[in-house]
Amino acid sequence: MEKNDTLLYVQLAEQLINHIKDGVHPVGDRLPSVRALAKSEQVSIATVSAAYAILEEQGWAEARPKSGYFVKRAAVEPLSMPKKSRAKTSPRAVTVAELAMAVQRGAAASDGVVLSAAIPDLEFPIADIVKRTFTKLSRYPSSFGNGYDIPEGLLTLRQQIARRAVDAGLHISPDAIITTGGAQNAIAQALKALTQTGDIVAVESPCYFGLLQMIEGFGLKAIEIPTDPATGISVDALTLAMQRWPIKAILTIPAFSNPLGCIIPMEKKRLLIQLAQRYDVPIIEDDIYGDLQFEGRRSKALKSIDPDGRVLWCSSVSKTMDPHLRVGWIAPGRYYDEVLQQKFVSEISSPTLPQLVTAEVMKKGLYDRHLRHARATYHQRYIRLLELAREHFPESMRVSSAKGGLVAWFEMPRSVDATELYYMCREQDIHLAPGELFSVSGLYQNCFRLSFSNNWTPKREQAIAFIGSLLKKMV
Amino acid sequence: MEKNDTLLYVQLAEQLINHIKDGVHPVGDRLPSVRALAKSEQVSIATVSAAYAILEEQGWAEARPKSGYFVKRAAVEPLSMPKKSRAKTSPRAVTVAELAMAVQRGAAASDGVVLSAAIPDLEFPIADIVKRTFTKLSRYPSSFGNGYDIPEGLLTLRQQIARRAVDAGLHISPDAIITTGGAQNAIAQALKALTQTGDIVAVESPCYFGLLQMIEGFGLKAIEIPTDPATGISVDALTLAMQRWPIKAILTIPAFSNPLGCIIPMEKKRLLIQLAQRYDVPIIEDDIYGDLQFEGRRSKALKSIDPDGRVLWCSSVSKTMDPHLRVGWIAPGRYYDEVLQQKFVSEISSPTLPQLVTAEVMKKGLYDRHLRHARATYHQRYIRLLELAREHFPESMRVSSAKGGLVAWFEMPRSVDATELYYMCREQDIHLAPGELFSVSGLYQNCFRLSFSNNWTPKREQAIAFIGSLLKKMV
Repeated sequence: MEKNDTLLYVQLAEQLINHIKDGVHPVGDRLPSVRALAKSEQVSIATVSAAYAILEEQGWAEARPKSGYFVKRAAVEPLSMPKKSRAKTSPRAVTVAELAMAVQRGAAASDGVVLSAAIPDLEFPIADIVKRTFTKLSRYPSSFGNGYDIPEGLLTLRQQIARRAVDAGLHISPDAIITTGGAQNAIAQALKALTQTGDIVAVESPCYFGLLQMIEGFGLKAIEIPTDPATGISVDALTLAMQRWPIKAILTIPAFSNPLGCIIPMEKKRLLIQLAQRYDVPIIEDDIYGDLQFEGRRSKALKSIDPDGRVLWCSSVSKTMDPHLRVGWIAPGRYYDEVLQQKFVSEISSPTLPQLVTAEVMKKGLYDRHLRHARATYHQRYIRLLELAREHFPESMRVSSAKGGLVAWFEMPRSVDATELYYMCREQDIHLAPGELFSVSGLYQNCFRLSFSNNWTPKREQAIAFIGSLLKKMV
Repeated sequence: MEKNDTLLYVQLAEQLINHIKDGVHPVGDRLPSVRALAKSEQVSIATVSAAYAILEEQGWAEARPKSGYFVKRAAVEPLSMPKKSRAKTSPRAVTVAELAMAVQRGAAASDGVVLSAAIPDLEFPIADIVKRTFTKLSRYPSSFGNGYDIPEGLLTLRQQIARRAVDAGLHISPDAIITTGGAQNAIAQALKALTQTGDIVAVESPCYFGLLQMIEGFGLKAIEIPTDPATGISVDALTLAMQRWPIKAILTIPAFSNPLGCIIPMEKKRLLIQLAQRYDVPIIEDDIYGDLQFEGRRSKALKSIDPDGRVLWCSSVSKTMDPHLRVGWIAPGRYYDEVLQQKFVSEISSPTLPQLVTAEVMKKGLYDRHLRHARATYHQRYIRLLELAREHFPESMRVSSAKGGLVAWFEMPRSVDATELYYMCREQDIHLAPGELFSVSGLYQNCFRLSFSNNWTPKREQAIAFIGSLLKKMV
């Protein structure tokens, strides 16, 4: 996405932040009033308000009642590392798309410490069960069907998905479900069914880079909606954006947002649905982490309170069984025909055997047993990551409070260049996901995402210590 | 696609054909001169010439040197069956998209006689070898990689594809290849990389319905280029179309065009490449049937004479091993980065195990041994289909002369409604592919496609006799 394609309010926020960084506005300084700025920049009051909301959220400014906005913090000191060290590292990717692909490739090829990918622990017994089920089922000739599966996917699997969906508060028929090649692929079919080149899609900010890359790759535009680290997407900011832009779809990860790990509370989910109704737009719900809540009862999916079929519920077993299965699904509500058509034309059908294996593992209750174990284990590993971070990372760090899922989000002082950090770590075969990936407008350069799904072996703990040592030189 | 979206020359040809059918122009009548028609219809000389080319190709008119075009055949008699029998059959699909999906579903669910789908014979030993290799490889934990494969796909498989590509005259590096979920999926990634909503893609006519549905599903427009049953796509007609329309890509099946089964001769391939160069457009080559040539040496792919990386070579093992594997690939030439990005954003990566299984089967030489057997067997089965058709179908039928692949194309007198035939056969659990599917502008209502890949059991032979008995009532 080109600079001139990004949102006006994001541009305005960046400009204000740059002024603060450059010392134009020192700490404690009163920033221009909303009205004055709207006039001087020739934008609407809403745009200025949205820009100031970003400044507040990022801690640059604070609102004082009846007085306006004031600078809260100044730019931190410039990079303390010698400049030349930057030139020593590997060539940097030119675009975010290249960087995203490099991060993906690094994770797939590495024998080192991969903290960059939201991959489940493949040493859990479920991974072995999946393999043994493959071995077992591939012996039966009937397992393969007669060549091409039906476009909507294997009925046995759709029945299991419908049965398990009850936990998410969903009461849907297997006939309302279409199987896909993972959740990413489910979302891809949804976007293709709902949008045309040039259309605008609202996303959370920060947003999982796979989704941002998809939006860009499909010739669409992403509007980044400020997202509260505790309660998810800002409905106020989204309302402003809906007023201003012809948004064609809302894309959200209500349960354990990637990368923030937060969950949208039920009251906010209702507001989100109401907003979508008011503007008559569909909501694509990425529920891939829904089954991985650390504690308490699984929270209900957004789809469970969908009154008129406008929520397209997408999920997979990539985070709970094995991503290599590439088995996911979508319950597209009123958009069923369009989504089925997209799947049919893009792929004809899904591979039969992985669907059969997934259904078999679910049917035997092995999956639910695994989930109980996985939730508790991932919770412990997340807590251990926080301990390690507190021990090794600079005191000025902030970390998201994850309620489930496989990843945590770290924010460092502005002086930290997390992409540089990524390249420096990669030389030691340590992989993290730099924050730059999670924005289309250059936000989060000082942030990164770490996964905590794997066991904290000494090697992995040392990797955190190594990242910490680099960070301490950067702040 | 709406009527007003189709090509002017196709509309004009249809109009002229309707005049002939209606008896406005009896056999032997001189049709309006090109110049006169261009003036009266307010279109260009080129458009009229292209329209007359269609009439010639379909046998409605013939050109006499220096005299112009003359009506060659008249409409056949109207449907001799009682009208009410039409109302007795199942409800007809409302759109071609629905019909395509119904045909696909019918084939996937049927235990009867499936002649509608281009599915290889799954009773060949290769199908068992594939299953046994699944069983074998799924035992090794290392078979699954560490969660997500790299976006470009498994190196072992790409090496095998590169090695086998030599037979098609291609000398490419494994690094120039991206694995996909079948050839359809390879073409989908190519189209997404090359086009935007509303763009125009040139296709052969008749054209495999999976491709037409994809073009429609992606919000693109198809231009149907007249195709010679013996030598494939008309370069002259394509040239005319390129002159007139901003065509963004050419999509062709040069080896054993689906449904015609013809092969584009090398001289014509060169002309096609030159034309693509002149207008600087890419060519998507669907080579899925390339390995299934009945006799002689495998003909060279279009990609083998691609001078500047503008051919995107797409293929799979769906027609030669087992479609359920969903393993295909693309060598996208100069569009490598864009295609890789599309695969990454739509699917992240392909499932590991099916790629590994495919590579293993290729590596052991089992695949080549299978191909030798399959080519000869399919040839025999095609010859048997022709014998059966000659025995049971009306004398007025025409049939394409297939040189390879799995399907043959039948043209009946205009009185035959092949979609009606499809529904009538389906009631007996006999499935064929009606011609209507192979056009976006209502052509080929009197045609259908039959696959000959399976052994001619008495049940299958009786199905041909049954189709013949219906046809004889319709002509």
